[in-house]
Amino acid sequence: MMDCLVDGKPADTIPVDDRGLQYGDGLFETFAIQSGELQYAERHFSRLAAGCERLGFTAVDWPTLRSEATAFAAGRQTGVLKLMLTRGSGRRGYTADGAMPVRRILSLSDFPEWQGVPSEQGIRTRLCQLQLADQPRLAGIKHLNRLEQVLARREWQEEAIREGLLCDTQGNIVEGTMSNLFAVRDGILHTPRLEHCGVAGVMRAVIIDVAVQAGLPLEISSLSRQDVQQASELFVCNSLIGLWPVIQIDDLGDYPAGPVTRRLQSLVQAHDDHNNDTWYAK
Amino acid sequence: MMDCLVDGKPADTIPVDDRGLQYGDGLFETFAIQSGELQYAERHFSRLAAGCERLGFTAVDWPTLRSEATAFAAGRQTGVLKLMLTRGSGRRGYTADGAMPVRRILSLSDFPEWQGVPSEQGIRTRLCQLQLADQPRLAGIKHLNRLEQVLARREWQEEAIREGLLCDTQGNIVEGTMSNLFAVRDGILHTPRLEHCGVAGVMRAVIIDVAVQAGLPLEISSLSRQDVQQASELFVCNSLIGLWPVIQIDDLGDYPAGPVTRRLQSLVQAHDDHNNDTWYAK
Repeated sequence: MMDCLVDGKPADTIPVDDRGLQYGDGLFETFAIQSGELQYAERHFSRLAAGCERLGFTAVDWPTLRSEATAFAAGRQTGVLKLMLTRGSGRRGYTADGAMPVRRILSLSDFPEWQGVPSEQGIRTRLCQLQLADQPRLAGIKHLNRLEQVLARREWQEEAIREGLLCDTQGNIVEGTMSNLFAVRDGILHTPRLEHCGVAGVMRAVIIDVAVQAGLPLEISSLSRQDVQQASELFVCNSLIGLWPVIQIDDLGDYPAGPVTRRLQSLVQAHDDHNNDTWYAK
Repeated sequence: MMDCLVDGKPADTIPVDDRGLQYGDGLFETFAIQSGELQYAERHFSRLAAGCERLGFTAVDWPTLRSEATAFAAGRQTGVLKLMLTRGSGRRGYTADGAMPVRRILSLSDFPEWQGVPSEQGIRTRLCQLQLADQPRLAGIKHLNRLEQVLARREWQEEAIREGLLCDTQGNIVEGTMSNLFAVRDGILHTPRLEHCGVAGVMRAVIIDVAVQAGLPLEISSLSRQDVQQASELFVCNSLIGLWPVIQIDDLGDYPAGPVTRRLQSLVQAHDDHNNDTWYAK
């Protein structure tokens, strides 16, 4: 069961003429809730604001949105808050009046329980056939046009495979269907650039920050299939799963859950504790 | 005001957990209604079926969908029926169970009234900066991921400009934000290939058919900016507007509403009459 709030009122439906449905004309954020607090709230809202800027959502009532989200999470020990913003109800046609009030859709669900302990044991992955299209105007932001991810996720049924990795049109590996990707090569931490496709994940940003703070050498650049094949460690990440070591990419290679991944898991955990204090204090 | 039908029942809302909203995981068709009949019904349903095949919507109740659409249109002298199919309600996450019932969303609106008589006088257009991304897995079908069109349509406000033309990443001109494009060069009718991006419009298919039947030389191939610049005639088309001559592309060129366009307008009109008879007879 989901608890939902649409424009501040309890509701589990939206109007058919909502542009989020009609065109995918909107954005979303998925927050982990721990002890009634939104994890990485500032980072999520800041990415959402960047998305609003990109799509031209000018009429966002940020204080209301933030207080709704905060209050909605407050009752839950753990959970997931999915927050969607759409360009609201519109007439037929692509023309979007900038002044239309943005629609706020908040929904709570239980925190997922994963089989096994993937953060410890690592996961099996596969390389998807679908290639992410090059669209700099949409790259990085978390918008509602997610058919690429849906189609990629349909490429496999096997439950033991927990994530699919996606290449761009040049054949570089960019991210997972629901996660960002990091690789360790020659002691250097690598994560792909996301100027042409992919979502700039909140957990990816956290990892980049903690790596830099810890003095780990880091490169943000393209990752070829060969780079990934020759990596000594691989992991995927997002706001809910944290860091999951990748121990296998089908037909490509096996990897250990190695020391850099383990260290980053600890650093992120420590950062989480600090981050929550910061958020509390605001 | 819209009249809506969701899964066969009068309703103007859909559940928040609908995958059409969550991911744009769906398809749509826009039918013109004339004298209570859906125009080009067979072509629209056949494109919709192709989209369902591509997205893996296996559980579509076609007879029900067709009878709902037909009955819904029957009461209207003129109008527009927008029909959306989504993958229905799902749990959080991209995983899509193939067995989920597809949601049918039908909405009626008035037939648009355009200022002036654009089919006679022709229209001004512009070349958009946004380039359509290359995604063969989604090209051709009319899916609900339409942020490219939304962003392109936001590039201009001037009402006198009725359509924006879009290039692919190679700089070839592919289509309009809401229409397909045809050009006449050296007496040959050209329309772009749509294997990598673009929507394979129903009116485009009608025009191709009537052109072939009339023995007009036709080429389906890439259209460079230069090809378009040097065209002797240009027009855009869709199921609602029919054929609109393009008399100007800002900063690129001026064109007459020429004889090939006029002939095709007549041929399509004649085909329409015939098409309706066919549909009646079924």
